[in-house]
Amino acid sequence: TDAIDLAVVAGDGIGTEVVEQGLAVLEAALAPSGTKLSTTEFDLGAQRWHATGETLTDEDLEKIKSHDAILLGAIGDPSVPSGVLERGLLLKLRFALDHYVNLRPTKLYQGVTSPLANPGEIDFVVVREGTEGPYVGNGGALRVGTPAEIATEVSVNTAFGVERVVRDAFARAAARPRKHLTLVHKHNVLVHAGHLWRRTVEAVNAEFPDVTTDYAHVDAATIYLTTNPSRFDVIVTDNLFGDILTDQAAAISGGIGLAASANINPDRTAPSMFEPVHGSAPDIAGQGKADPTATILSVSLLLDHLGFAAESALVHDAVAADLAARGDAVRTTDQVGRDIAARVTG
Amino acid sequence: TDAIDLAVVAGDGIGTEVVEQGLAVLEAALAPSGTKLSTTEFDLGAQRWHATGETLTDEDLEKIKSHDAILLGAIGDPSVPSGVLERGLLLKLRFALDHYVNLRPTKLYQGVTSPLANPGEIDFVVVREGTEGPYVGNGGALRVGTPAEIATEVSVNTAFGVERVVRDAFARAAARPRKHLTLVHKHNVLVHAGHLWRRTVEAVNAEFPDVTTDYAHVDAATIYLTTNPSRFDVIVTDNLFGDILTDQAAAISGGIGLAASANINPDRTAPSMFEPVHGSAPDIAGQGKADPTATILSVSLLLDHLGFAAESALVHDAVAADLAARGDAVRTTDQVGRDIAARVTG
Ligand SMILES: CC(C)[C@H](C(=O)O)[C@@H](O)C(=O)O
Ligand SMILES: CC(C)[C@H](C(=O)O)[C@@H](O)C(=O)O
Repeated sequence: TDAIDLAVVAGDGIGTEVVEQGLAVLEAALAPSGTKLSTTEFDLGAQRWHATGETLTDEDLEKIKSHDAILLGAIGDPSVPSGVLERGLLLKLRFALDHYVNLRPTKLYQGVTSPLANPGEIDFVVVREGTEGPYVGNGGALRVGTPAEIATEVSVNTAFGVERVVRDAFARAAARPRKHLTLVHKHNVLVHAGHLWRRTVEAVNAEFPDVTTDYAHVDAATIYLTTNPSRFDVIVTDNLFGDILTDQAAAISGGIGLAASANINPDRTAPSMFEPVHGSAPDIAGQGKADPTATILSVSLLLDHLGFAAESALVHDAVAADLAARGDAVRTTDQVGRDIAARVTG
Repeated sequence: TDAIDLAVVAGDGIGTEVVEQGLAVLEAALAPSGTKLSTTEFDLGAQRWHATGETLTDEDLEKIKSHDAILLGAIGDPSVPSGVLERGLLLKLRFALDHYVNLRPTKLYQGVTSPLANPGEIDFVVVREGTEGPYVGNGGALRVGTPAEIATEVSVNTAFGVERVVRDAFARAAARPRKHLTLVHKHNVLVHAGHLWRRTVEAVNAEFPDVTTDYAHVDAATIYLTTNPSRFDVIVTDNLFGDILTDQAAAISGGIGLAASANINPDRTAPSMFEPVHGSAPDIAGQGKADPTATILSVSLLLDHLGFAAESALVHDAVAADLAARGDAVRTTDQVGRDIAARVTG
């Protein structure tokens, strides 16, 4: 590739601020090779919804599909009813573009303070399933607002869906030094879904005989993340458990200001999407306070996905160096972006 | 009451060891008032299942129902397929006896070391719904073991079920100095169930105007439990989120060796059940290593539920004093039980 055609969804709140810095660093990383970066901005999020009532139209979706990748800032605003933008935009993108691997690396970088007294070495990656589980939007409500109301949420899990994400997780584990995979679920209660996950991990393990595996219930996993996060190498888990664990994982490794994520379509039938784990943080929006590091690390994942391994490493190492030098200095969003871009340029 | 008729389900692994100490402390607490404690032991758990294939028969259940309360140790063993005892025994008790309030207090006691670098003051209680949500056992699987397998888990939430537990949580919040209630859910994704919970909290708040409320998504709640657990006073949440958060809550406040729980039927149509949050821990069973503190704190909850407020406080204070004096000394299960019982006797 000598060109990248990027769809940019800056979104709401601090989304625009952090995406600006992500793009600056991306430019800096691509400059030496002369790779051309072209971007198309998509006006999606709270403003668009207020103005038009639209979240993500079929036309938007088709246009986005023609890009090589998506960089997303953050979606959501208190002025929009809960669920409208999440289900109608963010999750719609993940589902429509078949982002079945939601990749969330967790690393406690040098220079970063963990809220844990003895964090030890933290370096694992969560492979969160992205297109099934309780996120499918099945279920509904009856007799809403009456004493006889009933609301259901259906978690849908298929052999097709579980196997492909488990295989991806095994491949990632096999490529890491420790070659260890932990399945997180709750198969003692959610027996149907849980046993499907468990059997699938056992079956796919045969294809990756050098990967060791173990299992943790999701409740126990929150304990391990508190007392011994070093035990984890690759975690594979369902959509909801992955959502919960990756926020906790971010918390123990310096906060969601640093937590990157990639919504990957490994079959490349549609563009993958890269976004910080954090939300739109309306409380600090517009103040230049947001930390763009999570977005910049997501840009590193984006570069890797598009085959720019060297550039990906460059961005990653620039972030690591910036974090190591960071100390207590307070910098604006722009300053952090500029400093990291400067390290990338070298 | 001048007598307590207690059903005892010691269960598996360390269950028998910790229950023995729980009972000893209970005896010590009741002795001064001359309250008679009679116990009926129920042979339930892995051994019974291996011997008879039974988990909890209707006859067992009827007998248990005739008691004032249940003290449970722990259920589960690796030799039993996952889910059999959990669904067939533990959850069956919670559901059949309508334990809709699963109460889990979290306190960082003096003398206890938290894995958090700056734990601050930790003193909150989780009111976990106990009879609905993804725990209902609805759902199922089709074409199991084939590439076309599909497994569903249905979370069922009713106005009836949500309202009664929310009201209980408000009443608890109103009785605490801070009078603050946090709803934890994921209403931006699980919109049907989430909005029912949210509307219910808003509605019941009118009956408790001096209670302040806020809301946290379950993923964000794991962050707060890591970075600022002091913000919580009473948390009300669904069955699964409550399961996850209370293990994390135990982890930050000294571990599951200290975490007590009460499965309460507030309407008293059936006996309530008191059990440590921890499991049967087969790896340390039979070695006298298990910490009976969680069970003893559960006994304090039991006494309170049965109207023995002074005795409940006595046991609680004895545990607090034991913890404050504990240091690094290694004691057996029996020694810890004896030491706490001695403090109760005074
Ligand atoms: C905003 C929300 C829908 C989203 C999710 O639950 O997946 C977020 O929490 C995340 O982790 O990316
Ligand atoms: C053993 C299991 C079924 C149980 C639960 O999930 O409720 C346990 O984790 C708990 O928290 O009491």
